[in-house]
Amino acid sequence: MAEFDTVIRNAVVATAADVFEADLGIADGVVAALGRGLGPARREIDAAGRYVLPGGIDTHCHFDQPMRDAVTLADDFLSGTVSAAHGGTTTVMPFACQLQGQSVRAAVEDYHRRAGRKPVIDYGFHLIVSDPTDTVLREELPALIREGYTSFKIYMTYETLKLSDRQIISVLALARHEGAMVMVHAENSDCIAWLTAELERQGKIAPYFHAVSRPQAVEREGTHRAITMSEIVDAPILLVHVSSADAVEQIRWAHGRGLKILAETCPQYLVLTAEHLQAPGFEGAKYICSPPPRDAASQHAIWQGLASGVFHVVSSDHAAFRFEDPEGKQRHGVQASFTKVPNGLPGVETRLPLLFSEGVSKGRIDLRRFVALTATNAARVYGLYPKKGTVAVGSDADLVIWDKDREVVVTNELLHHNCDYTPYEGMAVRGWPAMVLSRGDIVVEEDKLLAEPGRGEFLRCGPPARLA
Amino acid sequence: MAEFDTVIRNAVVATAADVFEADLGIADGVVAALGRGLGPARREIDAAGRYVLPGGIDTHCHFDQPMRDAVTLADDFLSGTVSAAHGGTTTVMPFACQLQGQSVRAAVEDYHRRAGRKPVIDYGFHLIVSDPTDTVLREELPALIREGYTSFKIYMTYETLKLSDRQIISVLALARHEGAMVMVHAENSDCIAWLTAELERQGKIAPYFHAVSRPQAVEREGTHRAITMSEIVDAPILLVHVSSADAVEQIRWAHGRGLKILAETCPQYLVLTAEHLQAPGFEGAKYICSPPPRDAASQHAIWQGLASGVFHVVSSDHAAFRFEDPEGKQRHGVQASFTKVPNGLPGVETRLPLLFSEGVSKGRIDLRRFVALTATNAARVYGLYPKKGTVAVGSDADLVIWDKDREVVVTNELLHHNCDYTPYEGMAVRGWPAMVLSRGDIVVEEDKLLAEPGRGEFLRCGPPARLA
Amino acid sequence: MAEFDTVIRNAVVATAADVFEADLGIADGVVAALGRGLGPARREIDAAGRYVLPGGIDTHCHFDQPMRDAVTLADDFLSGTVSAAHGGTTTVMPFACQLQGQSVRAAVEDYHRRAGRKPVIDYGFHLIVSDPTDTVLREELPALIREGYTSFKIYMTYETLKLSDRQIISVLALARHEGAMVMVHAENSDCIAWLTAELERQGKIAPYFHAVSRPQAVEREGTHRAITMSEIVDAPILLVHVSSADAVEQIRWAHGRGLKILAETCPQYLVLTAEHLQAPGFEGAKYICSPPPRDAASQHAIWQGLASGVFHVVSSDHAAFRFEDPEGKQRHGVQASFTKVPNGLPGVETRLPLLFSEGVSKGRIDLRRFVALTATNAARVYGLYPKKGTVAVGSDADLVIWDKDREVVVTNELLHHNCDYTPYEGMAVRGWPAMVLSRGDIVVEEDKLLAEPGRGEFLRCGPPARLA
Amino acid sequence: MAEFDTVIRNAVVATAADVFEADLGIADGVVAALGRGLGPARREIDAAGRYVLPGGIDTHCHFDQPMRDAVTLADDFLSGTVSAAHGGTTTVMPFACQLQGQSVRAAVEDYHRRAGRKPVIDYGFHLIVSDPTDTVLREELPALIREGYTSFKIYMTYETLKLSDRQIISVLALARHEGAMVMVHAENSDCIAWLTAELERQGKIAPYFHAVSRPQAVEREGTHRAITMSEIVDAPILLVHVSSADAVEQIRWAHGRGLKILAETCPQYLVLTAEHLQAPGFEGAKYICSPPPRDAASQHAIWQGLASGVFHVVSSDHAAFRFEDPEGKQRHGVQASFTKVPNGLPGVETRLPLLFSEGVSKGRIDLRRFVALTATNAARVYGLYPKKGTVAVGSDADLVIWDKDREVVVTNELLHHNCDYTPYEGMAVRGWPAMVLSRGDIVVEEDKLLAEPGRGEFLRCGPPARLA
Repeated sequence: MAEFDTVIRNAVVATAADVFEADLGIADGVVAALGRGLGPARREIDAAGRYVLPGGIDTHCHFDQPMRDAVTLADDFLSGTVSAAHGGTTTVMPFACQLQGQSVRAAVEDYHRRAGRKPVIDYGFHLIVSDPTDTVLREELPALIREGYTSFKIYMTYETLKLSDRQIISVLALARHEGAMVMVHAENSDCIAWLTAELERQGKIAPYFHAVSRPQAVEREGTHRAITMSEIVDAPILLVHVSSADAVEQIRWAHGRGLKILAETCPQYLVLTAEHLQAPGFEGAKYICSPPPRDAASQHAIWQGLASGVFHVVSSDHAAFRFEDPEGKQRHGVQASFTKVPNGLPGVETRLPLLFSEGVSKGRIDLRRFVALTATNAARVYGLYPKKGTVAVGSDADLVIWDKDREVVVTNELLHHNCDYTPYEGMAVRGWPAMVLSRGDIVVEEDKLLAEPGRGEFLRCGPPARLA
Repeated sequence: MAEFDTVIRNAVVATAADVFEADLGIADGVVAALGRGLGPARREIDAAGRYVLPGGIDTHCHFDQPMRDAVTLADDFLSGTVSAAHGGTTTVMPFACQLQGQSVRAAVEDYHRRAGRKPVIDYGFHLIVSDPTDTVLREELPALIREGYTSFKIYMTYETLKLSDRQIISVLALARHEGAMVMVHAENSDCIAWLTAELERQGKIAPYFHAVSRPQAVEREGTHRAITMSEIVDAPILLVHVSSADAVEQIRWAHGRGLKILAETCPQYLVLTAEHLQAPGFEGAKYICSPPPRDAASQHAIWQGLASGVFHVVSSDHAAFRFEDPEGKQRHGVQASFTKVPNGLPGVETRLPLLFSEGVSKGRIDLRRFVALTATNAARVYGLYPKKGTVAVGSDADLVIWDKDREVVVTNELLHHNCDYTPYEGMAVRGWPAMVLSRGDIVVEEDKLLAEPGRGEFLRCGPPARLA
Repeated sequence: MAEFDTVIRNAVVATAADVFEADLGIADGVVAALGRGLGPARREIDAAGRYVLPGGIDTHCHFDQPMRDAVTLADDFLSGTVSAAHGGTTTVMPFACQLQGQSVRAAVEDYHRRAGRKPVIDYGFHLIVSDPTDTVLREELPALIREGYTSFKIYMTYETLKLSDRQIISVLALARHEGAMVMVHAENSDCIAWLTAELERQGKIAPYFHAVSRPQAVEREGTHRAITMSEIVDAPILLVHVSSADAVEQIRWAHGRGLKILAETCPQYLVLTAEHLQAPGFEGAKYICSPPPRDAASQHAIWQGLASGVFHVVSSDHAAFRFEDPEGKQRHGVQASFTKVPNGLPGVETRLPLLFSEGVSKGRIDLRRFVALTATNAARVYGLYPKKGTVAVGSDADLVIWDKDREVVVTNELLHHNCDYTPYEGMAVRGWPAMVLSRGDIVVEEDKLLAEPGRGEFLRCGPPARLA
Repeated sequence: MAEFDTVIRNAVVATAADVFEADLGIADGVVAALGRGLGPARREIDAAGRYVLPGGIDTHCHFDQPMRDAVTLADDFLSGTVSAAHGGTTTVMPFACQLQGQSVRAAVEDYHRRAGRKPVIDYGFHLIVSDPTDTVLREELPALIREGYTSFKIYMTYETLKLSDRQIISVLALARHEGAMVMVHAENSDCIAWLTAELERQGKIAPYFHAVSRPQAVEREGTHRAITMSEIVDAPILLVHVSSADAVEQIRWAHGRGLKILAETCPQYLVLTAEHLQAPGFEGAKYICSPPPRDAASQHAIWQGLASGVFHVVSSDHAAFRFEDPEGKQRHGVQASFTKVPNGLPGVETRLPLLFSEGVSKGRIDLRRFVALTATNAARVYGLYPKKGTVAVGSDADLVIWDKDREVVVTNELLHHNCDYTPYEGMAVRGWPAMVLSRGDIVVEEDKLLAEPGRGEFLRCGPPARLA
């Protein structure tokens, strides 16, 4: 048996299926052995009393993505990955976003430049397909899939991103043929536009009306339509950031018919509601994201869905805009209509702590489901498995040593993103990363970053793997 | 690191979450390490090209259980466990059945005597509670739970076994209070009785009419009622041998409401239909079991349920009666009414091969789901985890080395139960156990039994563990 | 054309389908003609500005029915029918209740004696079948059906009334064979008993806990079970006094499967909630009925059901017990457990005003649906049509001239029952009967009774007619 | 009482609520009285043994509507109304179809010219809104609503007719504000286009592939989307020509949520299936309509929906194209792709006989429901009630005297449309019109037309009336 570079002793290791006590030996950046009394090794870590989990995989986060209207995302590939790492995440999959008229390859190249030598953890790219020309569908995407870009995100809303149904079906057909996964942002664009116009006509422009302009029915419709197109083409889809009881109902319905519908939700839909958008003054703008947080009944439906298999992935949808910033939430000032406020929340660092605290610590889900939702399923769905997403012999030693008893009050000071606020300010959580390893390297230890920019490697993704 | 008694090399190990290549080291009957280049060991097994899976756990099988009417089960704890082992199963949980007026403890003692020094693999007992007197509820069951009998089975039908709703609720309340799992046979007894009387009045007594006497609606009603009582008491239940699309619909409905409903199905509902009961002459009696096999639509619904999380356990419901036998299916001759035919099928040996072949080999479920359904979930639900049910450091080395490519035509000759037929005669399957280990001992190798009667140990079960 | 005894001029006549202006000519107690400029007649009534509707048919009311435990219903066939008539009802169908061990015929004869020369309006009987012996099923009920008793009520709860599932199926099979309608009180008796015992054990005995002892799940279960038995026998049933969103869901589900399920609700489920049972002191006892009033969500579900065809009949379930009375609600004093309080509310007089005011005046249902729900459907379902239940040539001139604009604050003083309270005390309604005719006789005019006891005739019911 | 022009004696009159025996007196074209022994009158008609029903109202039929591609509808306002009258229909509501770029008023004027002095029965117009410019929405439609055009039809498919979701919402908002009814053709255009392109690419162009190009999912999606927009705007809609079990499921779901969704189906979805499109050679083209006929399960679901209140209207969707005609089905020859075949079937004359025979005679629906579905509901929904749609004092004497016992084998020779085939050739029906009256005039008697072209009057429709 090979020597180990590192041995983690006395671990309670958790996978998506199992929780067991073992020592864990790491060699050449991968898990080389699980056993008892392993060692010795050059470096030994005592994990007594802590969980050893697969590092989180955040498959929905936006870094350094140019926005229209001179608005700027707060985080690039450095601050974004540093923040992720501090939250226990060891792999991120941000987006390479095709612009109208741009080739997808050009977008990919652009985002590789943006990533540059910044990431401190490993990363892959989803491709946002906003202009699926024949060339894109017939040449670029098949080639890019072979090169390791095996997931696309498509939008049913947002003027410069949204696809027509015909385009969506074409992308789905391509994905099915070539073996890629399609993520869908499902909201009915025209309904939102009409409601928005009505609200503005009535002078209802405060941040809260963002939520009114995108009611559950709008998400439900997009969800049903996306499911239908998936059914017609027989191509699986993953519905991103599902927020509402109505959408959950549609997904359950699809599962009952045997359709291959995967679903993601995010912490903001588990702990926030539309009431947060009613905060005094312009404060509500901090919570503007799409879909908007809903109500207690939707939170309940989503928690039930996490426990009962409706959902497969919990991601952050990190899209941070600074609040006190003319390139951020206040681009058009604090009197501006909600339509002028950039959509998105920070969350890449708080994802695991929030889900662990509200889910595992409060008994809504168990530890194994937590692992599945934060790491394993995403790795499978996006073709990173078994390199990433689990604690198993041969997998990358991407690990988070989790202090399940640490109590933390979330404040923005505590966090490492480049945003000037967190929507979870003041929230008490139980459970926090104690140490984070990436390919055997300690990248965070007791809240200190030990990694250099650029150590993160680009991941070529394989074909999507099934979940059951 | 300790020496290993055995090392299995080149394994593709599968758990309910992961599939990975590793060597597996066994010491003192437990999995001591997973790694690469383990060893050396006193015994080395080359598993190249094969899967190493957790041994099957069959949590629904009837051995040596006295029947009314001088009918005798074909299998006792020897032939039953030998047959199980040959099929890749390393743990069984048959029933200790309380008779009317009997104390449950007396039943437990009786069944321990019946087991005696017969089992070749480990075993625990579910308690069939047929007479839940105050003493039973207040004294016997709490004491027995503490002693390792943590699951009860109750019946909504069968004259000498069925409980009233009031009794069912009382058992559920006790189970909730003391931490036990309740398995429910859900069929409406009165409806069956009325339909049966109608059929007999019309002279419709051939084996096929057994299926007519227990339509889907009868199972659906029992299912809904059991779910309701579970909801009222807030006690989880496990619905056994779910057979119909109608029952699947009810379970989905319950999951959508967040109710803690677990469900089991059996291979007979995946590969047989009621048409089998229409076999010429009395042959249909071979397929008489309750609930009866249904139709293609129900098979489809159950396969979908296996893939999408409706079901948690696949067991055999092995209850073998010899066909050509006056103590078996022909107790009252071949002209007898279906009501005189004992209910039950053999299946403890064919469970894994059928589910693997029809499920994994045909792509309906993946290998990880197979492991979850045949071993891991059952171990958790019935308090055997992590000793049993997975391949993890510290767990018993109960393993099946699975030849995924072996093609077998099932015949009764091939099987090791004491029954004179198999309902799957002539069915071709792909995938069969190559070697079976129990606590590190090879108990079956290339279809040869290497275990002595009595080597199987009694398992004290702990409290039920959650599944998500 | 015959002379008319009476002509009602300038009427806006409403049926379950139509609203039209016409004069209405009555001869020999029946509607002889509808036209314009009818007459002349011996008596002319000007209905200008008012609706002329079919008199209400209340098919769920309890008069002079002996109770266990020396409790006495407040109303007999005189006060009951007088109260009904004042509320615009011209036909009642109370119950002839078989006691355990009693022949149904004896019960029928008993109730005919009780009715005697008391009723001021026409009446038929439903038969409560509490002891369906072979003789009852094979001889008595078929004979009684031929004599005009074509509907049975059966109970799934109440110790002295409830039938086993086997008995229920037998009654359904008989009803199907002979052409009768079965009304079902659907609540799970054992669940209620267990919950009640738990509550009493915890000292939770105040009136409010009546509602806690009968949660929606208990009604839902009974509803699902009754639907299943109806499906198995292929016999229509009518679910009485449906109170909850959960039961509505089951009925919708049944309709979606094409099952012949009819449903009734009552005003108490439209305007009261369980909060009324929390009235101070013992006041909550005034609202104790089974099922109990629910919550706002259930009210909403039932209103939606009235508008969208889930429900076919709105009746009163009038079962009045005096509040300040040792034979009434206070039989065991004001400290008594809710289990000692007789179940039931008065309502025969307020049924039409409440449904009209809350339904028609507030726009939740239209006038035609009001007529269908209060008269036409009941007449069809219970075999009284076309003699009763509509305004059509040849039908009895049972009419209510309805003042749609009259505003009334309901008080018990205003009412004519023999109960000392109304649960609707102080409720403002819009719409009240101005005049009530039975077979062409004015029985109530401007709140004055013009009818003699005994003028009401016994109605032999025919077979149930379909509704669609 | 006024003298009668006509008395129909011994009628069994049926309305949507009632069936009763009466004489019926007609004066000045309206029903003047219902009674017994009416008369005498100038003309007396003996209806003994026959039903007297409201004349049918066909609210979905296409007459003289110009088509793209030099295709011509077979029927204009003469042959169309003559055919309708022979089938028992006394009111039709064809479409005035706005062309792209055309003002709606110009379309209305055009269709009035087309109608000219041709109609033999009364008629109104729905407006097809294909180009809802601001002028159309703000000026033309409000004005036209006031002039008696109170229903619009909009399309979610067909290149030259379909509206975007934004346009649909705008039309719904206008309809809600001004009090109009919106009919929706709900199919997902892009899905159809993609499937069609796939089929053509594979050379699958025979008539049958028309059905494959428009699967149930396509209709279901459009249905769900239309429901959502209706919900968002809170405007009722009427879903036309619902064909599939999947769409029925969506409508039931909407009803369960209390949404104001009305639905129409047509005889082709009750008696034809997609198998008809597989007729040899080009014969399948005779059955090409959109949506296509489905399967037996969908037929069953629709019949259940008719009986249980899912549907409110049965219309013909008469859109007749001659089969052996270069301007008809064979516009591009018998080798042409299904995409080149005009969509539509004849049916205005067979609507009532088919629904009566398959529905009433076979016991699937009762006579009252037949009346509601063929006349009363449509009259209410489209603002023609009470002038049209019922048999009541003051309503137009639009009547069909129905011979419920007449057995007819449908052949095209028998029919009076200008189409050279009927899709129901050879089908035996029971029940046929014996005499048809329009405003008291006999227009058809024993299959002979007694009406002059142009006697039909244009109907100004009022606001939609509610159905419950």
